[in-house]
Formats: sequence, structure tokens, C-alpha cells
Amino acid sequence: MSKPVIIADPSKGVKVDAGVVAAPFRKEIRDKVEALKAHGVDAPLLVGLLANKDPAAKQYAEWTRKACESDGLRYELRCVDDAIDVEAELMKANEDPKVHGIIVYYPIFGQEESFSGASQDDYLRDSVSFKCDVEGLCHTYRTNLYRNVRYLDYPNQSQKCLLPCTALSVVKILEKCPNCYDESKAVGRQLEGRTVTIINRSEIVGRPLAAMLANDGAEVFSVDINSIYKFSGGRLHKCELTPEECVRQSSIVITGVPTKNYRLPTEWIQPYATVVNVASFKNVDEEALLKIPGVVYVPLVGKVTVAMLERNLVRLFDQFHHPDVVYRKEQKKAGEAPWYGSLIQLYTAVAITALLVHHTLRRK
Amino acid sequence: MSKPVIIADPSKGVKVDAGVVAAPFRKEIRDKVEALKAHGVDAPLLVGLLANKDPAAKQYAEWTRKACESDGLRYELRCVDDAIDVEAELMKANEDPKVHGIIVYYPIFGQEESFSGASQDDYLRDSVSFKCDVEGLCHTYRTNLYRNVRYLDYPNQSQKCLLPCTALSVVKILEKCPNCYDESKAVGRQLEGRTVTIINRSEIVGRPLAAMLANDGAEVFSVDINSIYKFSGGRLHKCELTPEECVRQSSIVITGVPTKNYRLPTEWIQPYATVVNVASFKNVDEEALLKIPGVVYVPLVGKVTVAMLERNLVRLFDQFHHPDVVYRKEQKKAGEAPWYGSLIQLYTAVAITALLVHHTLRRK
Repeated sequence: MSKPVIIADPSKGVKVDAGVVAAPFRKEIRDKVEALKAHGVDAPLLVGLLANKDPAAKQYAEWTRKACESDGLRYELRCVDDAIDVEAELMKANEDPKVHGIIVYYPIFGQEESFSGASQDDYLRDSVSFKCDVEGLCHTYRTNLYRNVRYLDYPNQSQKCLLPCTALSVVKILEKCPNCYDESKAVGRQLEGRTVTIINRSEIVGRPLAAMLANDGAEVFSVDINSIYKFSGGRLHKCELTPEECVRQSSIVITGVPTKNYRLPTEWIQPYATVVNVASFKNVDEEALLKIPGVVYVPLVGKVTVAMLERNLVRLFDQFHHPDVVYRKEQKKAGEAPWYGSLIQLYTAVAITALLVHHTLRRK
Repeated sequence: MSKPVIIADPSKGVKVDAGVVAAPFRKEIRDKVEALKAHGVDAPLLVGLLANKDPAAKQYAEWTRKACESDGLRYELRCVDDAIDVEAELMKANEDPKVHGIIVYYPIFGQEESFSGASQDDYLRDSVSFKCDVEGLCHTYRTNLYRNVRYLDYPNQSQKCLLPCTALSVVKILEKCPNCYDESKAVGRQLEGRTVTIINRSEIVGRPLAAMLANDGAEVFSVDINSIYKFSGGRLHKCELTPEECVRQSSIVITGVPTKNYRLPTEWIQPYATVVNVASFKNVDEEALLKIPGVVYVPLVGKVTVAMLERNLVRLFDQFHHPDVVYRKEQKKAGEAPWYGSLIQLYTAVAITALLVHHTLRRK
């Protein structure tokens, strides 16, 4: 699964269906679920919380359900009539050992302020337990992402931090594109020498993606409507360039402008660039883009995003909910003696019994 | 230490030196340090990080040092020339088992944005380990405060969450004032029926204080220059009242306006109200205020704030750094057998030895 599966064409641009990237991940998930079932373990359960009359949210919920079910995962949608009850429902799901992943469909309160000062939706996002957070957006995962901490359990490194699905889907797509990740280099340096422009700095997609690519070694220009920053070497740098200057020097360009009318000028795109559109609107004139030699263009990432959601669910299950993990944890909690302790005790018991028998026989 | 030490005067207002509230806390700290020393344990160490040419920050550092040293606590100021190095110094202190508490003197970067989107100073604030956070302002403590979670280790409840010093100092002052906390009620309900107005909603003082008093049962009007919210029952409520209407119905009024010219109109203050000023500027015309019968007025909280800083340091030491705690943790880590396990082993060893001796003697 590590080699590029997407090949550039020197004579023109290539348009790529992200399904080719998603497919092996979804196969891996189906195989895992099969293996679990073969061992008598139920498939992981994802719970969706919907407190939203927005048809788009409903449709996203329906979409998640279909994907989960087609890969053997369990999905349960819980509709909450009154937004005020979402927190209680969320807490219930967090604490329910039968629930392995939770996805809340936003917006619920929008930017309405909470007790703690954050928006109510951000507060809810932070309230998802890290053991159930398939979206990888709670405070624990978010902070670790920005600090480039990749494991929860330093120094054991057995529990990986989860990453936000959409940003992760872009990474997985870039890993399969030519001239992006250099897998001969160490993890954290595989994008060294690459320049990336991301046109979007939302907290859900653009900012975490900029940090992730910078954490992998890239220089990332993060462009939004008001400002441009350079993410590089774990820090934010002021940037005096124009969007055009950023894009012109980038071999990877990610567009995520959530409006119908935005079009990235294709004359800024260099030959052999990789262009990924994470917006639900087309941010680029496809026809013009596909005339540029060597360009690889991924117009939609949704299929990979859903695969990453499923992958996150399976990872949460493996790390926190699998019966073996729960069993090991309970054993540890019970303060069990080390394995050699019981061996020594067994030996002593056998030895003393032998001596006793010997002793008794001699007496006769 | 639980009874009110401050008595109202029915004929006029009473001005209170917060030192009377601080004194028993500081005595308790000195006694604890003495007890530690008597057991051969060094006094807790507070490390201050100063990367700030601001004379006010330097003076605050000097002030902390004096207070710590006069109560037997150890204090070490670490000056950092380049602000960019504060994070590394902070991480070093976080991980140093010889450091028990850390205080960073802000502002360092002000509102300058960080990689994660929060301001650099907020990022640093969140980077202080909860095991060293004497200011009680890192994410763990902040979130728990807003969620009214009072212990770190549910359900054991052996490790208390720390609270931010200035807000905590106001609580401790109110506990000693008449007609505020009702100690005959359960914790979390002792301010039931009280109405409070706080004129300040900073993230460091006004907001956490509003949440803490609401978590103790009060209805709290939180007033800032742009808006008024009511904190009550763990939630934020929109509020259509004017500042005057809020103050007129409040028996407790906290002022924290950081400007020279602000004066709270004293005609809004009801008789027997408690008025606490947390600002470094006087927010009220003292002479007029002290004409109101029964009013208790605390013009400065600094002495109690420092006592709370010391108390937080001692609590961190007791919960995370005391040699006994470290020892118990190491024992637990080593996966020690339950106590009866070693008894069984001891019995077996004695029994086998007895048998051996007996056996050897018979042979002769």
C-alpha cells in the first residue's frame, strides 16, 4: 500500500477519483471486522448525534450510516429534539462501554458562547471523550497534533493519536500521488523540500492540515481571506507574500473555499503540481487545469474522508475498547503480580510438597 | 477557620484588610513546611519564568519571591532573554522532578497567534503541566472548573483540581464575610439564593470567578464593556438587564475594571452588601461606599491571592511530588503483588526452612 498509485501524465493533467485511494483502506477495515467476528467479537459501534434540522447534516448522517454498514461496522443515529440535551446524550455515549465512536453533526449552536467562553459547539467538540472521538478534534488530539505529539502514551508509543478525518484524507491522498511524500526519508521529514499552499484556515480542515504537513517537513502557506501565514518547523511565521506568489512556488495546492464563485487562477499552477480540492464547491476551472502537463488533480476527497472516519473508529476500538485491551486493563487495575511471581510461588509449593512427602515416607 | 471573621456594622460600612483572611492560610503553610522539614523533606520549590522587560512583571516576581521565602517555601526566578526560548524552559521545568510549581509572568507575546490558533501566551498557559500549574489556568483545570468537576481522579476523589489564584482569593474572602456562604448547606449549594454582580469577564479572573460562584449555587451577572451574561446552573444565559439593575439586586458585587477612571456608582449598592475590588485601581468612591449601613468592603485582594498561590503550590506538592506519593506511584508501577501475596510467600519460606532444619537434624 506504500507506493504511489497515481501516475502523472507528462502531456496533460490527470483527474483522479479519490476512490482509488479509499479502496484499500476500506478493504482493510472489512478484513478487520471479519477477523473480529471470526473471534466472536461484535463489530465496532459508531453513534451519531443529530440535533439539527439541516438537511445537509441529515444527509451526512445517512451517508456515514451507509458507508459503515457496507463495511460491516455498526452505526446508530440518535436524534436529539432539543439542542440543550445534546451534552447529556454525549456524556451518556462517552461513558457507555458499548459505544466505541461518537460523531456529532454540527452546527448545533453555531457561534453561541458557552459558560467557558468557547462557542457551545466547540465546547461539545471538546466534550467528546478521546476514547470515542472518531473526528480527532477533541482537545487532547488537537493539542497533540499542534505539538507534533504522535502517541498518547509516551514513552510506550502503543496508542496513536487520532487525526481529523478530512485533513488526514488529504495526507493519505498525497501519499499516493507522485512527487509528494518521500518514503525513503524518516517519518516527520517525508515532505522536506516541498512547498504547499492551502487556501482555507478553518479549525476543522485548513489549520490542522497545515500543521500536519508542516510536521511532516513541508513549508506550508496557509491562506485565508484576511491573512497568510507560513507554517514551518512547528511554528507560525508572518508572511508578506501574495496568494499568487505562494501558489506559484508550491508543488502542492489544496483548495477549500466554501463558496460557489471562487476560482483559483490556473495560470499560477506549476507543471507537475498536485491539486486537491477539499471544498464541496469546485474551486478551479477543471478544463484549464487539466491542460497543464503533469498536473494531478483530485476534485473530491469525501470517499477518503469516510474511509478515515471508519479507520479512526477501528483504531479507537483497537486501542480502548477491544475485549483484550479491556481485559489487560482490568488485570493491571487488580494489581496482579508479575508472571514470574506466580512461577516462584508454584515452584516453592511443589518443592515443599516434595519435601513433605519425602519426610513422611522416611518416618514410616 | 470556618466561621466568618468579618463582622458588618449596622451603622456604617466596614473596610477590611484582606490580610486577616490571608493570615490563617499562611500560618497553615508555614506549619506544613515545618512538618515537612521535621521529616527531612525539602520545602516545595516554585519556579518563576520571566521573559519580560516590563517592570510590573519583575515586581510581581519579586513579590512572589518575598512571600514564598517568608513562609519557608523555595522560589527560583529563571530569566529568559529571548521569548522564543520560554517554551523550551517551560518544558524543562515541567519534566524536572525537583520543580513542584511553575509560574510564568505574562504578557510575553500578547495576542500574537500560535501554530494552533490560540494566542502564544494562551498556548504557553496550556503548556504548563497540571502537576506544576500553581495558577490553575492550564486546560485541565480550566475545563474542570467550567464543568464543575472538583477532583482529577473520579471516582477516588483524592486529588483536588486547582483553581485560579485571584478568583479563589475572592471565594476565600467571601467565605469569611457575613451573609455570603452558608456553610450549613452542602458544598455546591452554599451560595444558593445569593445574587452576585462581577464587573470583569477576563479569562484569568472574571469568567472563572463567575463560573465558580455559579457552581456554588449563586446567580451571577457577568458584566463587561460589551455585554451582560447570567451564569447560573452550569450554563450561560442571555441577560437583558442594565449594569445598574444587576448591581441593585446583588448582595455581592465584585469590581475588576482595569482603568484609572472607572467608578461604580455607590447609590446602586444595597445595605449589607459585600463589595470586593480585584482591580489594581480603586473602582469605587470609598468614602461614599462606607456610608452605606452594613456594607463590607474589601479594597484589595493581593494578600489572599499570594496566599492562594502558596496554597496551590503546597497542594501540588502533596498530590504529585511528595516523596510518599512518588514512592507509592513507583510501587504501583512495578506491579507489586497484593499485600497478602508476600504474606503467603513469607509463610512458605518459613515453613520450608523449618522442614529443612527438621529434616537435617533427623539425618544426624
